[in-house]
Amino acid sequence: MRMVDFIEKKKQGKNLSKEEIDFIVEGYVSGEIPDYQMSAFLMAVYFQKMSMEETVNLTMAMAHSGDLLDLSGIKGKKVDKHSTGGIGDKTTLVLGPMVAAAGFPVAKMSGRGLGFTGGTIDKLESIPGFSTGMETKQFFSQVNSIGLAVTGQTGNLTPADKKIYALRDVTATVDCIPLIASSIMSKKIASGADVIVLDVKCGSGAFMKDEASASALAKTMCEIGNGVGRRTMALVSDMDQPLGFAVGNSLEVMEAIQVLSGKKEPADLRELCLQLGSYMIHGSDSSISVKEAYERLEKTLEDGSALEKFRAFVQAQGGNQDVTKDFSLFPQSKAKQEILATQEGYITHVDAMLIGEASMVLGAGRAKKGDDVNLAVGVVLHKKVNDYVKVGEPLVSVYYDSEKLLEDAKERINAAFTYGPRANSNHKLIHQLFV
Amino acid sequence: MRMVDFIEKKKQGKNLSKEEIDFIVEGYVSGEIPDYQMSAFLMAVYFQKMSMEETVNLTMAMAHSGDLLDLSGIKGKKVDKHSTGGIGDKTTLVLGPMVAAAGFPVAKMSGRGLGFTGGTIDKLESIPGFSTGMETKQFFSQVNSIGLAVTGQTGNLTPADKKIYALRDVTATVDCIPLIASSIMSKKIASGADVIVLDVKCGSGAFMKDEASASALAKTMCEIGNGVGRRTMALVSDMDQPLGFAVGNSLEVMEAIQVLSGKKEPADLRELCLQLGSYMIHGSDSSISVKEAYERLEKTLEDGSALEKFRAFVQAQGGNQDVTKDFSLFPQSKAKQEILATQEGYITHVDAMLIGEASMVLGAGRAKKGDDVNLAVGVVLHKKVNDYVKVGEPLVSVYYDSEKLLEDAKERINAAFTYGPRANSNHKLIHQLFV
Repeated sequence: MRMVDFIEKKKQGKNLSKEEIDFIVEGYVSGEIPDYQMSAFLMAVYFQKMSMEETVNLTMAMAHSGDLLDLSGIKGKKVDKHSTGGIGDKTTLVLGPMVAAAGFPVAKMSGRGLGFTGGTIDKLESIPGFSTGMETKQFFSQVNSIGLAVTGQTGNLTPADKKIYALRDVTATVDCIPLIASSIMSKKIASGADVIVLDVKCGSGAFMKDEASASALAKTMCEIGNGVGRRTMALVSDMDQPLGFAVGNSLEVMEAIQVLSGKKEPADLRELCLQLGSYMIHGSDSSISVKEAYERLEKTLEDGSALEKFRAFVQAQGGNQDVTKDFSLFPQSKAKQEILATQEGYITHVDAMLIGEASMVLGAGRAKKGDDVNLAVGVVLHKKVNDYVKVGEPLVSVYYDSEKLLEDAKERINAAFTYGPRANSNHKLIHQLFV
Repeated sequence: MRMVDFIEKKKQGKNLSKEEIDFIVEGYVSGEIPDYQMSAFLMAVYFQKMSMEETVNLTMAMAHSGDLLDLSGIKGKKVDKHSTGGIGDKTTLVLGPMVAAAGFPVAKMSGRGLGFTGGTIDKLESIPGFSTGMETKQFFSQVNSIGLAVTGQTGNLTPADKKIYALRDVTATVDCIPLIASSIMSKKIASGADVIVLDVKCGSGAFMKDEASASALAKTMCEIGNGVGRRTMALVSDMDQPLGFAVGNSLEVMEAIQVLSGKKEPADLRELCLQLGSYMIHGSDSSISVKEAYERLEKTLEDGSALEKFRAFVQAQGGNQDVTKDFSLFPQSKAKQEILATQEGYITHVDAMLIGEASMVLGAGRAKKGDDVNLAVGVVLHKKVNDYVKVGEPLVSVYYDSEKLLEDAKERINAAFTYGPRANSNHKLIHQLFV
C-alpha cells in the first residue's frame, strides 16, 4: 500500500476502503506518511468529498488512534452535548446543573479553546477557587454523588485528529464537512458518551455561515454517531447574533447564574438550553417525551433545584458558591462604559462576529494556545434583534481594562448593529432539528 | 502575505497575481514555505487549474529561480527541440546532425532521465570514447566550429522546478497541464534557446494518452513560449506504438545512424525528424518555408552530409566515428532471440508501454536516479502497425544478457501485439500542429 496511490484514488473521486483509511490514519500518526502527502490528500478530499461510509471509517480510525475513555464507572447512560462554537455560548454552564437537577448525570469534559472568549473551563475558573483538575476516580465519584462534574480533557484522546486538524489549519482544508464531522465525532466517540446532542451553530458568528451547510454538517454527524451505535441528535441554532446578552468569561457565568435562578431573560439562551436539555434527557430515556423533559427542566429553573445543583457543583470543585448571591466576588474589569444608540428603529441584525472581535480586542479571548485570557472584560448587550431602540438608549455595556483597546472595540460594536423600520421576520433561534 | 491565504484563494478558483506566484515559488525554494503547504496548493491547482497568465507567471518564476543560460557566445539563432518522452524516441540523434548539416547550429543540453531506456546522453555514451562532459567555453566553440554539440545539463537550472517536480511525484499532482507545461517551459526558457520546437507525444507509451490532452498541453506550452518572446511551435505525434523499430540504448544509436545514412526506414522516425527539423529551421529563419526546409533536410540525408556531420560531432566529443561503419564497435548483448508471430493478420496496435516495459525489464532503463543502464540490451521490432504478418514470421528481436529476465520481457512483448483482419485506418504519425 502506497499513500500516493490513495491520494490519486481520492483525487479521481473514488471511495477508499476501511483498510485504506486505517492505513492513512495510522501511517500519519506514526509519522510514516509525511505531512506533504497528508495535506495533498486532504485537499483532494475537499474537492471530491467522502462517502458516508468513508466518513464513518475516518471517524473511527481517528477515535481509535488514542485512548477510548471508559465511563462505566458512572451509573446510568452518559449524555454529552457539543456545540460547534459561537459568540456568547454559555449553554454548558446552564445545561449541566439543569439536566443534573432533573436526575440525569452529566460528566463533561471541556477545553480552553481558541476564540473570542475562553472556553467553558476558563469561564468556570472565573469563580474564585474553582478547579477543573481532577483524577478520573474523583471525576466519576463526583458525577455519581452530585450528578455533575466538569474536567479538562483527560488521557491521550484522538491524537490523529489533533495532528490532522493542525495540518488542516495551515493548508486551507478546514472547511470540509466530512473532515469537520469526523473531527468532532471522533472526539465525542472516544470520550465515551452513550448519547450525544449536538448544537450546530449557523450565522455570521459561526463557522457555518448558512443554514444549508450547518444542516449538512448536523446531518452528517448524526449519521456518523447513530451509525456506530451512539444515539446522536442535533439542533441547528442561530449564531447570527450572540447568544444571550453577555460575551466575556465571568460575564457569561453571571448570566448563566441568572438563568439558573429562574430569570426568563435572556430568552434565547434559556430557550436553547431547555431545548438541548430536553433532547439530552429524551436521548437518555426514550420513555420520557421531549415535551415532558422540557417541562421537567423548566421546573428545575423555577423551583431553585438547578441553582442548588450549580452551587453544589461549584463547591465540589473547590469554588466559592457565594458567587451566586454576590457577583462582586467575580473578577471585575477596571472600567465600564455604556454605548448609546445613535439612531431610532428596529434592530435587524447584531453581527455576532463583530461583537466577538470586540470581546477579543478587549482581551477576553485567546489567539493561540497558552495565551492568557482576561476573565473580567467583555461586553453585555442591552438590545438584540427585533428590539426597538431610541436615540440615546443604552445599547451595550463595555467592561474593559485599557482605554487604548476600548476605542477599537467600540468601533466594532457600533458596526455590528443594523437598524430598520420593521422587525426582522426571518429571525429565529432554532433552524433545524435532527432527532 | 501568508501561504495559507493563497492556497485558499486557489482552492476557491481565483487567480493569483504575479507577486503572489513569485512569493510562492521563492518561498518554496528558500524553504520558508513547507512541503505540506506546497502540496496542498498543487492539489488545489490540479482541481482549479491556472489561467494562462498564471501559468506564464509560474513558468517565469521557476525559470528565474536559478541560472539563466547566456548562449550569446554561439552565433546565430539558437534553436532547441524538446520531446515529452516516449518509447524508442531517438529523434535528437538524427535531428542534431541533420539540422546542423543544413546550416543551423544545434546546442543541445540533454539528460540521463528516468524511463524505459536511458536518455540521449546515455545513448550517446554507447559510442566508445564518447563524452558529454565539457566546459561551457568548449561547448560554445564546438557549436561555432561544427554546428553541433550535446552536453549534460550545466549550471543550476530551475531549482524551483526540480523541488516542485519531486513533490508532485509523491503527491499525485503530476497530471496537471499548467504544472506540466510550466515545468517543461521553465527549463527551456532558462536554457536560453530563441526558438523552441516541442514534440508532444500522445498514446499508450506517452504521458498524455489521448490527442485532446496532448493538444491542450502543446497549445499551453506554445502560448507560454510565444508569450515571453520565444518562438515556440509544437507537433503532437504518435506514441501509441514505439517510434522506429529499436528500443534500447546502443540499438537506438544504430538506428539513428541508418536514417542519417539515407535509409528510408524506419519511415516514422525519418518523417518525424524531417518534420521537427523543418520547423526548427523555419523558426530560426522565417524566410525559409517549412517545405523548403524539409527538402533541404532530405538532401542532407541523401548526399551524406548529415552522416558526415554526425561523424564530426562524435569525433569532436571523443567518440570513435568508425561506429557508423561497424556496428560491432557498440556494446553487444550476450544473446539474441527472435520472437515469431503466432497468428496471421494485420497488426492493429503495438502497445508502446508494454514494449517499453520489456526494455526496462531487460535492463535498458533506469528506475531511479543513479541506477546503471545496460547499453546493449533492448528490442528491435520487425513489424509495426498496419504491417501484414503470417504465423512464424519474425516479429521482434530481443537483445538480452539474462535468460531469467528474457521470459518476463517476452510476455510483455507478446501482449503488446494486437491483430485484426483489416489495417488500422485511424493510425497516423502527426496528430496536430501548433505553428
